[in-house]
Amino acid sequence: MKKEILKELILKNNQKIIFLTMDGLGGHSTSENSKTELETAFTPNLDRYVSEGICGLLDPVSPGITPGSGPGHLALFGYDPLEFIIGRGVLSALGIDFELTGRDIPARLNFCTIDSNGVVTDRRAGRISTELNRKLCGKIRNDVKLSDGIRFFLETESEHRAVFILRGDNLGGNILDTDPQKEGEKPREPVGTNEASRRTVKYVKEFLSQVSTILRDEHPANMILARGFAKFDPLPTMEERYGLKSLAIAQYPMYRGIARLVGMKVPQKPETYEDMWSQLKDNYQEYDFFFVHFKKTDSYGEDGNFDAKVKMIETVDQWSKKLWELNPDVIVVTGDHSTPSLLKSHSWHPVPTLLWAKYCRPDEVTTFGERYCREGNMGRMAMKHLIFLSLANAQRLKKFGA
Amino acid sequence: MKKEILKELILKNNQKIIFLTMDGLGGHSTSENSKTELETAFTPNLDRYVSEGICGLLDPVSPGITPGSGPGHLALFGYDPLEFIIGRGVLSALGIDFELTGRDIPARLNFCTIDSNGVVTDRRAGRISTELNRKLCGKIRNDVKLSDGIRFFLETESEHRAVFILRGDNLGGNILDTDPQKEGEKPREPVGTNEASRRTVKYVKEFLSQVSTILRDEHPANMILARGFAKFDPLPTMEERYGLKSLAIAQYPMYRGIARLVGMKVPQKPETYEDMWSQLKDNYQEYDFFFVHFKKTDSYGEDGNFDAKVKMIETVDQWSKKLWELNPDVIVVTGDHSTPSLLKSHSWHPVPTLLWAKYCRPDEVTTFGERYCREGNMGRMAMKHLIFLSLANAQRLKKFGA
Repeated sequence: MKKEILKELILKNNQKIIFLTMDGLGGHSTSENSKTELETAFTPNLDRYVSEGICGLLDPVSPGITPGSGPGHLALFGYDPLEFIIGRGVLSALGIDFELTGRDIPARLNFCTIDSNGVVTDRRAGRISTELNRKLCGKIRNDVKLSDGIRFFLETESEHRAVFILRGDNLGGNILDTDPQKEGEKPREPVGTNEASRRTVKYVKEFLSQVSTILRDEHPANMILARGFAKFDPLPTMEERYGLKSLAIAQYPMYRGIARLVGMKVPQKPETYEDMWSQLKDNYQEYDFFFVHFKKTDSYGEDGNFDAKVKMIETVDQWSKKLWELNPDVIVVTGDHSTPSLLKSHSWHPVPTLLWAKYCRPDEVTTFGERYCREGNMGRMAMKHLIFLSLANAQRLKKFGA
Repeated sequence: MKKEILKELILKNNQKIIFLTMDGLGGHSTSENSKTELETAFTPNLDRYVSEGICGLLDPVSPGITPGSGPGHLALFGYDPLEFIIGRGVLSALGIDFELTGRDIPARLNFCTIDSNGVVTDRRAGRISTELNRKLCGKIRNDVKLSDGIRFFLETESEHRAVFILRGDNLGGNILDTDPQKEGEKPREPVGTNEASRRTVKYVKEFLSQVSTILRDEHPANMILARGFAKFDPLPTMEERYGLKSLAIAQYPMYRGIARLVGMKVPQKPETYEDMWSQLKDNYQEYDFFFVHFKKTDSYGEDGNFDAKVKMIETVDQWSKKLWELNPDVIVVTGDHSTPSLLKSHSWHPVPTLLWAKYCRPDEVTTFGERYCREGNMGRMAMKHLIFLSLANAQRLKKFGA
């Protein structure tokens, strides 16, 4: 949907839309289980929404494409993931809950080991402890000084991984990786591929040169490698695009970060599912759109733990019962991609999805599950349309054309 | 899928993908048959793939659009047929198994009859015999000499139709037809509509002028008309786009030509279906992707011969049984478009399609047929996605985004 057209269609009202998101929801049968995780789970509460709503199988990117968390969530929020590309450095910064600004160039760093000739002998410095990482980052933060008033941030991720952010005016992010991607070579020189980025390389070089001195006597982490430089270009917000004041209720930094990327308000991290419910209830009157994110369905999928994923879906089913108390207008239950425990990874399979609303023209599906969703009225469609279907059901879209 | 993005996703492994293609597979019920040709056919072997796989109804171009063989096959190979346009001259050259190069400008020729004033009285020269066509083409090939070392090729198609190819450096193919498309007018002058094509017109004029002298005393074929000039721009190959070393097993020149267009290796023409099986088996370890093309389903559809099309589908079903011997990873069975015998022509109806693979998340369809495919997990989607779904199922695509 072109933004000029979309702009003309947006209508504001008091109707509320809740996106209940189970990360990696879609699954697969296994040799022991003839049904998928979702088909196996006992979900009486979700089934009630299904019975009164419509179902479908949604492709986050396009058929066959396995989405990362970034593209999966962008699609969920109606941002075409093939149009809005998030750099790896940006995702890493989001993943540690760092608040990026439009003046920032984030990149991913690895601590590494180099020999006396400067050749990389271990790209991960023996996977140093997160604790040592923190210590070294603290030292670098203290000692490095960049010229021209350019600021930098350096934040530990875990083990050998850290995030680096340059902040200043008119910086460029088209800078090639210094990480040679294999051992036995020297780190590459950072090279800028456009004017602003060539200017920016000066500060990257200052940083790397000072770090090299600071880490000289450390072992095994005596140097760093940088990759995934990308200028952070703030996305149009959910409010600008859809007129939706949006709240994100999520426990994990990556998803809090992506929500922030599209302008959602992200309150303090909820410690428990009960906290998540309180954040929803307490903020219900203040916002129009609620992104509620449960992570563990994906984690258990990645672990290959079919039964735990089933149990987690049942936990969310129980949680979802409370939604009736709010007398909501539109409820969507979906995932950002599939994570079958059979594959122990994200997968390309389309995501089972339900939409419940007063005027959704219900189909005949009565149980939440991949094979039942296939028969639903939403059909198989691109995930990026889901937000528009939700806006329509919340009567928040005008007629297009006369 | 943009090629820059696609490039990042490609992964190579040893998994094999077989596309078993029945030309014009999709059909229609008739007043005598309440089922389509495919629904009528007894297909126990294909039904086995269906039972363990996923089905769908696929649109080669978009809903309502009837594809020619070019667009149909491009979609099958994942090349958006609205983006990659093949000129008619190019298709004609492919249709006679002519190997085009990037220096070629092909066009279609008709032998025609003109009167003493040069006015076209029969655009098809009374549909002269293919034999006479060959004789005249031989004469023209012998006698015509173009300037500046420009080469030409002239090849008989059938009856009054031939293919003309100009070969040289920096030629242009934006040249208007000389065929006036109706009788009672003189042939038009060839006109180039850009710089390179204006230069190229010189050689077309030389050719037409010499041909006119050579044919002066022939009857009825005393002149030629040219149309569909188009520069041949080689397409990115299947190997470049998908990392797939691809083999085409097809008996008919048009399909061998289209396969060559996307860089497939095309071995010697297989004379029998048994030969097709041998080519597949003997080359199985050497290639990653196999395009196996059966033509007769389309031919019988075009003839309006419902029963013969049913029988042909049953023949392919029997043939497909052997595929198990190869222990393949991904099997797709589909067509390039529909050719219902009811309509005796290509049609716009979506194409019944099955995909069988280990991790395809099977649906509940058990019989191959249009009305059953509708209920499959592939849903109704654009044909151009099929290759990505196949690559995903062959675990040949990386995750998109982090």
